[in-house]
Amino acid sequence: MIKSHALKIQNAGASMEHSVIERRELRKHDILIDIRYSGICHSDIHQGEGDWGEAIFPMVPGHEIAGIVAAVGSDVTKFSVGDRVGVGCFVDSCGECDYCLAGDEQYCTKGVVQTYNSLDYDGQPTYGGYSQNIVVTDRFVVRIPDKLNMDVAAPLLCAGITTYSPLKHWNAGPGKKVAIVGMGGLGHLAVQFAHAMGAEVTVLSQSLSKQEEAYTLGADHYYATRDQDTFSKLAGSFDLILNTVAANLDVNAYLSLLRVDGTLVNVGAPSKPDTYSVFSLILARRSLAGSLVGGIRETQEMLDFCAEHGIAPMIEVIGADPEEVQHAWERVKQSDVRYRFVIDTEQLNGN
Amino acid sequence: MIKSHALKIQNAGASMEHSVIERRELRKHDILIDIRYSGICHSDIHQGEGDWGEAIFPMVPGHEIAGIVAAVGSDVTKFSVGDRVGVGCFVDSCGECDYCLAGDEQYCTKGVVQTYNSLDYDGQPTYGGYSQNIVVTDRFVVRIPDKLNMDVAAPLLCAGITTYSPLKHWNAGPGKKVAIVGMGGLGHLAVQFAHAMGAEVTVLSQSLSKQEEAYTLGADHYYATRDQDTFSKLAGSFDLILNTVAANLDVNAYLSLLRVDGTLVNVGAPSKPDTYSVFSLILARRSLAGSLVGGIRETQEMLDFCAEHGIAPMIEVIGADPEEVQHAWERVKQSDVRYRFVIDTEQLNGN
Repeated sequence: MIKSHALKIQNAGASMEHSVIERRELRKHDILIDIRYSGICHSDIHQGEGDWGEAIFPMVPGHEIAGIVAAVGSDVTKFSVGDRVGVGCFVDSCGECDYCLAGDEQYCTKGVVQTYNSLDYDGQPTYGGYSQNIVVTDRFVVRIPDKLNMDVAAPLLCAGITTYSPLKHWNAGPGKKVAIVGMGGLGHLAVQFAHAMGAEVTVLSQSLSKQEEAYTLGADHYYATRDQDTFSKLAGSFDLILNTVAANLDVNAYLSLLRVDGTLVNVGAPSKPDTYSVFSLILARRSLAGSLVGGIRETQEMLDFCAEHGIAPMIEVIGADPEEVQHAWERVKQSDVRYRFVIDTEQLNGN
Repeated sequence: MIKSHALKIQNAGASMEHSVIERRELRKHDILIDIRYSGICHSDIHQGEGDWGEAIFPMVPGHEIAGIVAAVGSDVTKFSVGDRVGVGCFVDSCGECDYCLAGDEQYCTKGVVQTYNSLDYDGQPTYGGYSQNIVVTDRFVVRIPDKLNMDVAAPLLCAGITTYSPLKHWNAGPGKKVAIVGMGGLGHLAVQFAHAMGAEVTVLSQSLSKQEEAYTLGADHYYATRDQDTFSKLAGSFDLILNTVAANLDVNAYLSLLRVDGTLVNVGAPSKPDTYSVFSLILARRSLAGSLVGGIRETQEMLDFCAEHGIAPMIEVIGADPEEVQHAWERVKQSDVRYRFVIDTEQLNGN
């Protein structure tokens, strides 16, 4: 077995602690990755604190992983030692169902194996990227383009693909009016993607506090949702609204901002149910949808798109000390980060 | 003014009574239609009883109108006296907005003028089809194909187009698995449409009581939703679910029946809000949508499709006596009709 220093949570809501976990010996298609950076995703916190129900403990969170190939199994041909690579939200899928064959592994019929808080197909718990290294089958490893720095690449593996995929799927592009709800880790990437795809981009955020940065990132308009006039002003405006906020919204109010045939896509997932009136949908043939990250092929496409268009998250790099990471979690919960924390996991060396 | 015997409701929830209303004198593009049959739609009851909030009284319900052209204005070229024609849910729209120009008058930016319980652009209340005659501008009149009887044509003008339009819009057709929720006035037409379009059709109804008729109409499968096994058996099965039921459903349970990228379209509109978990959408990129009747061009297309494929509602024709119609309303509320009541409005002659 391969040892890996890691940040571990013993049970739901417990403090993070330093620990040593074991990674499996390399199989023929496996890649050992020395993790350099691991992004902090709000879903790490939801899972670590047990907000989303049943979870597997001990837990090592982290599914925004950027690192360097340290060793490869005998049948690995696509990657070599020294390559700059990434791993996102999942590390295995059946590979045979319609969805896997279509490159939508996230919807695998057998159930995708998540990077952490999951059991792999051998029944072993998976441990994520808040760690020194990880072993992943080559099909779930992507290449980080030379033009992208490793630290900014990490958050793209979840926050990036989670916003890129629905924008592509629902055809954000020239002639389309797209609103991004929430200007956080996901939202500030969504603004860049939608802009680069050619859409007219509006940010809908609680306050005007992030207005300047939004314009810098490519937003065309910015409105505060605390201002009730916003909803009357923008009624029937958008072809697509991407909601990146993981809190319950007034769904009817946001639906009213869509034009006929418009879609409100949720990628933020509040733990409590939402309510809506069917009339909000019927009266303008609107849709309410959801989207889950994206497949591996599309993740590679997204990274290449970022390199081509100069897209990167704005990040704050922190050390790998448990207290420091725990403190960052608290700040994420307070929305006190612009816009994504990234752990420098090279510091996880056991000293 | 032109006199018209009619069934009138004086205020929300009052009993229907016989009355004489006035129709406007014909303008250049107007058509006077002698109404032969008028379908009873559940929405007549919702509006007549004030379930949907503010409404205009006195009210003459009815938006499933089949009749004979009795006179035409000077500029009418498409219709002549004696033609068999129909009028559906609306009688005017701006004619200039993007939606009107696209043939989606139901979503007119200025606001469509409904056949009843609406004000026309001159501010005059509109009165519907529970009456002897009606005056409608020619743009909102459709032709009833020779192969369709007048009595069965009436319900197609609302129940028909309401189900045909979303089935077309969301591509029901060969290779698609389509579920129809509810086997009532709308549902029994939706089954026929989806079958004729080439889809594999499943009916989801509370009980098995309408199973035989559903098979006769073209259903391939039929399940009772009271049987909880139905939901586990059919999990992840459908590309499209058309919900024709105007009551609150367990939205998450129905969403779970959709495969990845599937859509649950509502055409039934419960008066209370629905509740759903965003996870039900996210985990399989599902959509929840609504659809409102259909445009005039599509309504004509639907009538022609019915004539071509031998599609017609199963109806119970009743007289135009106020008590008889009121009694039919009660039966609709009890779901005690197979499958649509049609009023023989020729009996409204004032005697």
